Amino acid sequence: MSKHNIRLKDIAEELGISIPSVSRALNNKPDIGKETKRKVFELAKKLNYQPNQFAINFKNQQSFIIGVIIPQIVHHFFSNVISGIINEAEKRGYNIMLFQSNESFESELKGVETFQKSMIDGLIISLSDNTQKVDHLKYLQEHNVPVILIDRITNEIDAAKIICDDYQGAYIATEHLINLGKNKIAHITGSLTPHTTKERLRGYEAALKNHHLKIHERYIKQCNLESREEGYKATLALLAEKEIPDGIFCATDINAVGAIEAIKEKGIKIPEDIAVIGFSDWEMASVVDPPLSSVSQPDYEMGKKAIELIIEEIQLTRENKPIKYETLVMETSLIMRESTIGKK
Amino acid sequence: MSKHNIRLKDIAEELGISIPSVSRALNNKPDIGKETKRKVFELAKKLNYQPNQFAINFKNQQSFIIGVIIPQIVHHFFSNVISGIINEAEKRGYNIMLFQSNESFESELKGVETFQKSMIDGLIISLSDNTQKVDHLKYLQEHNVPVILIDRITNEIDAAKIICDDYQGAYIATEHLINLGKNKIAHITGSLTPHTTKERLRGYEAALKNHHLKIHERYIKQCNLESREEGYKATLALLAEKEIPDGIFCATDINAVGAIEAIKEKGIKIPEDIAVIGFSDWEMASVVDPPLSSVSQPDYEMGKKAIELIIEEIQLTRENKPIKYETLVMETSLIMRESTIGKK
Repeated sequence: MSKHNIRLKDIAEELGISIPSVSRALNNKPDIGKETKRKVFELAKKLNYQPNQFAINFKNQQSFIIGVIIPQIVHHFFSNVISGIINEAEKRGYNIMLFQSNESFESELKGVETFQKSMIDGLIISLSDNTQKVDHLKYLQEHNVPVILIDRITNEIDAAKIICDDYQGAYIATEHLINLGKNKIAHITGSLTPHTTKERLRGYEAALKNHHLKIHERYIKQCNLESREEGYKATLALLAEKEIPDGIFCATDINAVGAIEAIKEKGIKIPEDIAVIGFSDWEMASVVDPPLSSVSQPDYEMGKKAIELIIEEIQLTRENKPIKYETLVMETSLIMRESTIGKK
Repeated sequence: MSKHNIRLKDIAEELGISIPSVSRALNNKPDIGKETKRKVFELAKKLNYQPNQFAINFKNQQSFIIGVIIPQIVHHFFSNVISGIINEAEKRGYNIMLFQSNESFESELKGVETFQKSMIDGLIISLSDNTQKVDHLKYLQEHNVPVILIDRITNEIDAAKIICDDYQGAYIATEHLINLGKNKIAHITGSLTPHTTKERLRGYEAALKNHHLKIHERYIKQCNLESREEGYKATLALLAEKEIPDGIFCATDINAVGAIEAIKEKGIKIPEDIAVIGFSDWEMASVVDPPLSSVSQPDYEMGKKAIELIIEEIQLTRENKPIKYETLVMETSLIMRESTIGKK
């Protein structure tokens, strides 16, 4: 045994505490006092303690666990992403450990920390709205745990990323309205911080421009993207304009549901007078009256692709081969329903 | 070292293969040939091989992983259950490993098998529609891994179970229609195999009976519970009756959406002529026109409760204390919207 091969037993004997206590202190378990933890960590560092051979072997053998952190599960898009992740992981013999951050950065941090203790082979993450720094993700990469970002990404880290083409989706939605003969097209958008919202606005503007239509600031209304009520109010504001729009592209389906409510309330015909299109093609889109045209995102496919990419990275990492990070941009598709094309 | 303390090394030397190969064979990894696996298993059995001390310690220390198997994730009820499970597990320092069976028994079996290798501390499961035998769950129990059944339960196993009170939910839905003055109340139901569907029918019949209303077979229509189209057709059949109903209790919201479509198409007023109520209070309920009254299930709470119960069982199991299994029946609540009470 080399002199570096320090065991938990040595630390326990030196400090006069039990081996399980040393183990629990090193694993930062809550039932060990702060002072004890401090002593254990200091001595472990001084003695250059290395986690024992079995733990290392275990890691070398892979855990076949992939950690997944998403902002929310009760969410059409994310639940489909997870479904794609889980089904594909199962096929390839991997287990999925799932965590939801509830849009909290602190919670996301905690998720990464606990996953690490379970020795995940890789992490797929969709960042919380409040995540600015990504040192926790860089830490994983430095410890040979590949990280893939999906949908909610950031430029703060060099990693593989998978997003859907919000720009293209907004473009085809807006162009669809133009092709129907509409030329006063409004856009209901949200706070312009998230990448996705900005891209949808950009796609809307590009479609108007390419079809030689003017962009009017008064036709672009901001509201809470998750709120039907705010979609309703934003539409009432549009209907109060001197020249009311003949088409509305909403950045979310739930906003569009509010828009339809407002338009119907005013006795205005959909789609004859105003055509409405949403984004994401949630279950509600086909249920609302009239059924809502929308842009369908490749959510399930994105999840599937994330597993393919991360398993590839896990293999390359284990073989010490270089990894080239790319951002995969996946196409959306147009779903036409009565709110734009009327009854058949 | 006792003579029973056989190590991987002993097996490896005897068979002339490497230690990692023995380990991988014992873990049934795909990259080891069948013949090698057979030899390793036979010798391990003959030598009475016991997993090594670290692995045992590791198990004694708990993995702090709880396995969860559900039929589908893209599902309002189940995604809420999982949300409750994950948030509560996080609070208590446990990780969730998630698997979806896609209603396949084989897939469910595979989930249990892989979870076991990840040394889960306990399992929360909602059975697939095709699960009849539950030997896989009994096996876990025999190996001191507690199992809790949620929503999709069975009498084939003695374990803690959590369900929502479908009988009571159906009762209050039907009684709500009666209290509104309706006395020709129809029920759209599904295949009567699942426990939940049977209970909803039973609650409907009990409410009629207690209010001295007759149960008419012609007012009870069976259809696919997941289909809007079938809810539509079942309602058309009801509207073809000599005496049409003045209220319809649908066993699912999606059936109710189809029912509303059929009633509106015939120019019949909702709720004046026919009131409609669904079950589950999915997102679509508030989006359909008119907004749909429904029965809300305590999905998130059920998930939360499942974590509470399983952690309790994990503790009792570790302390070798007896466990008394109970079935927890959680109450539903009535959500009143325009489809029964009209516009305010």
